[in-house]
Amino acid sequence: MHNPELQAALQWNERYAAQSVEQLTDLLRIPSVSAQSAHHADTRRAAEFVRDQLTTAGLKTELCETPGHPIVYGEWLGAPGAPTVMVYGHYDVQPPDPLDKWDTPPFEPTVRNGHIFARGATDDKGQMYTHVRSVAAWLQTAGKLPVNVKFVIEGEEEVGSNHLELWLQENKERCRNDIAVVSDTSQYGPGMPAITYGLRGIIACEILLHGPSKDLHSGVFGGSVANPANALARIVGELHNEEGRVQIPGFYDDVADLTPQEREEWSRLPFDKAQYLASVGSSETWGETGFTTLERRWARPTCDVNGMLSGYTGEGPKTIIPSWAMAKITCRLVPNQDAHKIVTALRQFVEARVRPGIRLEFKEHHGCPATVCDLTSPYMAAAKRAIEKGFGKAPVLIREGGTIPVAGTFKEILGVDTLLLGWGQNTDNLHSPNERFSLEDYQRGIRASTCLWWELAGK
Amino acid sequence: MHNPELQAALQWNERYAAQSVEQLTDLLRIPSVSAQSAHHADTRRAAEFVRDQLTTAGLKTELCETPGHPIVYGEWLGAPGAPTVMVYGHYDVQPPDPLDKWDTPPFEPTVRNGHIFARGATDDKGQMYTHVRSVAAWLQTAGKLPVNVKFVIEGEEEVGSNHLELWLQENKERCRNDIAVVSDTSQYGPGMPAITYGLRGIIACEILLHGPSKDLHSGVFGGSVANPANALARIVGELHNEEGRVQIPGFYDDVADLTPQEREEWSRLPFDKAQYLASVGSSETWGETGFTTLERRWARPTCDVNGMLSGYTGEGPKTIIPSWAMAKITCRLVPNQDAHKIVTALRQFVEARVRPGIRLEFKEHHGCPATVCDLTSPYMAAAKRAIEKGFGKAPVLIREGGTIPVAGTFKEILGVDTLLLGWGQNTDNLHSPNERFSLEDYQRGIRASTCLWWELAGK
Repeated sequence: MHNPELQAALQWNERYAAQSVEQLTDLLRIPSVSAQSAHHADTRRAAEFVRDQLTTAGLKTELCETPGHPIVYGEWLGAPGAPTVMVYGHYDVQPPDPLDKWDTPPFEPTVRNGHIFARGATDDKGQMYTHVRSVAAWLQTAGKLPVNVKFVIEGEEEVGSNHLELWLQENKERCRNDIAVVSDTSQYGPGMPAITYGLRGIIACEILLHGPSKDLHSGVFGGSVANPANALARIVGELHNEEGRVQIPGFYDDVADLTPQEREEWSRLPFDKAQYLASVGSSETWGETGFTTLERRWARPTCDVNGMLSGYTGEGPKTIIPSWAMAKITCRLVPNQDAHKIVTALRQFVEARVRPGIRLEFKEHHGCPATVCDLTSPYMAAAKRAIEKGFGKAPVLIREGGTIPVAGTFKEILGVDTLLLGWGQNTDNLHSPNERFSLEDYQRGIRASTCLWWELAGK
Repeated sequence: MHNPELQAALQWNERYAAQSVEQLTDLLRIPSVSAQSAHHADTRRAAEFVRDQLTTAGLKTELCETPGHPIVYGEWLGAPGAPTVMVYGHYDVQPPDPLDKWDTPPFEPTVRNGHIFARGATDDKGQMYTHVRSVAAWLQTAGKLPVNVKFVIEGEEEVGSNHLELWLQENKERCRNDIAVVSDTSQYGPGMPAITYGLRGIIACEILLHGPSKDLHSGVFGGSVANPANALARIVGELHNEEGRVQIPGFYDDVADLTPQEREEWSRLPFDKAQYLASVGSSETWGETGFTTLERRWARPTCDVNGMLSGYTGEGPKTIIPSWAMAKITCRLVPNQDAHKIVTALRQFVEARVRPGIRLEFKEHHGCPATVCDLTSPYMAAAKRAIEKGFGKAPVLIREGGTIPVAGTFKEILGVDTLLLGWGQNTDNLHSPNERFSLEDYQRGIRASTCLWWELAGK
């Protein structure tokens, strides 16, 4: 493993560590807020910056136009017979508001206590850029990479990746690869590098119950027509039993159970309940009986109301029967649950409970299934070794409760698994003021990425 | 019954019918919108108008100041040994908005198709003024009334009668009477005069469930803490069973059952279900199994959500676990239910269902019990005879689902029942644009009121 080419690339990283920070600082200075049209030109500028750096590193690049922000594509395909790795990341960032909560301006990157503070520092410029630096290290030293690489760096991740899917479909052949790599997640904790091998999926819908054509006087009419707010509460209230089990028929039918090994390993992960409750501002946990908090978050499906509205919500009482009532609901899905099947079962669950005099309007939003990586795959083993070398510590294997839709998209369109190798920390304030990224983790990430190309080649 | 004094009074009414319309028109021209401070002086002007007309009629009057709008008090106590009747009404009106929906301006009374159109026409200036005219008729002809009368005409009915209760307590002796008369309700239908002998009471509360201290990411945290919106739906959903029965323990314990005679009489009232559904804009009725629509509205208690709010209610999905959820709830009460007992039972019902991690905040608003008149009382019999004379048709005996808090207040403070003798129609657009009052019903009401003093004396 003491390959001289790998060693040279790692040494190059060390020698040019200051340059890697300078370049990241330059990228962070660009306010590439994809959601805001005032930052349209800035967003494009960030794309050009990434493209130029990939070109300088030695990749063949292209700025691919979409109806929205462009996708940066870069490839180096000089390793015939070796695996092809697709690196995905994004150069766009969340809006920086509220500005007055930042200790230093969001687009004036500042280093304090070993962290670089700026919008996008961890999400995703800093993490993504580790892969730019690692391919540069190989190409500037050995003049080649142990694997073929294809970079797909988009500019609309923070606004729903609206044009990525179509672009991938149109560029399916060009993007063909063996394994995808994404660094846009977190370590389990400080000094606890992690591979996220599973993500939950999601379905989202809106239940709108229409009752009387106008708000009615609750005295004159109360008791004679179904109240849509009461009717909605009845339906939503029946979604769970008192043990926190979702009552939609078939909801758990396809759920992949955790293996005894996974439960065993998760039980060994440090988890401080008091600290967790403090972080969410709750007095107690609550969820499906028979599972730990981590299991509930990472491996069990949910059914949550995200919003609910009906009738009069101002000050004091108003004696009406509301004309309509609305609930927004999302279900988080776990491996093997089918999004379409679940949303259909939810719709049927609701339909079966609509009272006379109430008309249901059921709106479905876009959903996606959960993803999970094969823990026994050679790519996973290679990633483990690379991280152990880069961070000096073997990674823990974790899942996340959230959804990273691209992982599902890659599986669906390109047929590949995604290695989620997060260099960030949960405390990095992503989407919040004072977003930051540890410069030590940045260098470790570059190191781990540099090793990753080597390890993936020798899988 | 062909008493010459009564005949003279009735003839006086006929002779001065035009004057009665002129005076009502003058009163309707005053924009006495009690809710709007811009109409403060107008509201006072309406009080002065009513006081002056009562004075002219021959009563001893006073404008009684309150911290809000004044109460007009007028009395004639020249019938020792005869009953004392308190007439309650109000000279204030609802705001006329939306102005653009009026065919003629709300404070420019206009007669079309036998109706006078103006804000306050039926609620309550027109109905109230029938009693002013009837005492005038007696006092201008016989020079006396068959009973003693006390008028209490307030100016804050449309804004919650905030100062009436205290004033009644402070003027308890002065207001002492045998029976109260209020004309502020409706006939059962055109040509179907009615006595409303029962009203529902009300309790109002707000349930606020506090969960995590901030909205949480539903992916990262979903499944591990109780979602206040789901928890609220569970509680509210359990308030009824599928047969529409309220599930609060003890809710029905004290409910006065309808007598077989009441059910029999109500079943004979014309009720067109299709017309009813069209009027409320519903496709079907729904309510407590085993009761008709009229019974459900008039004689059965309810538990309705008036408003509900939680989390994100804008366009599209937002994947959060809301920090809190709120429901406003009112219960309509029927005779013998105790407001305090019911609100306490509701609170306990909610408290017993609060999940771990959720904190309940339960707010109570002011409530009042149901009221019902003794159907066998001589006052009721007198009112029936008076209405039969005035309208040429015997009244039907009905209840209403709404709450008229003063009826409860009179019972509580003065110990008297209230005769609700409504001259209006359900189609009179009260609280809506194009409020109106039939001029025929106005004259019939004056006639019935003129007879009422006579009948109450001979009870």
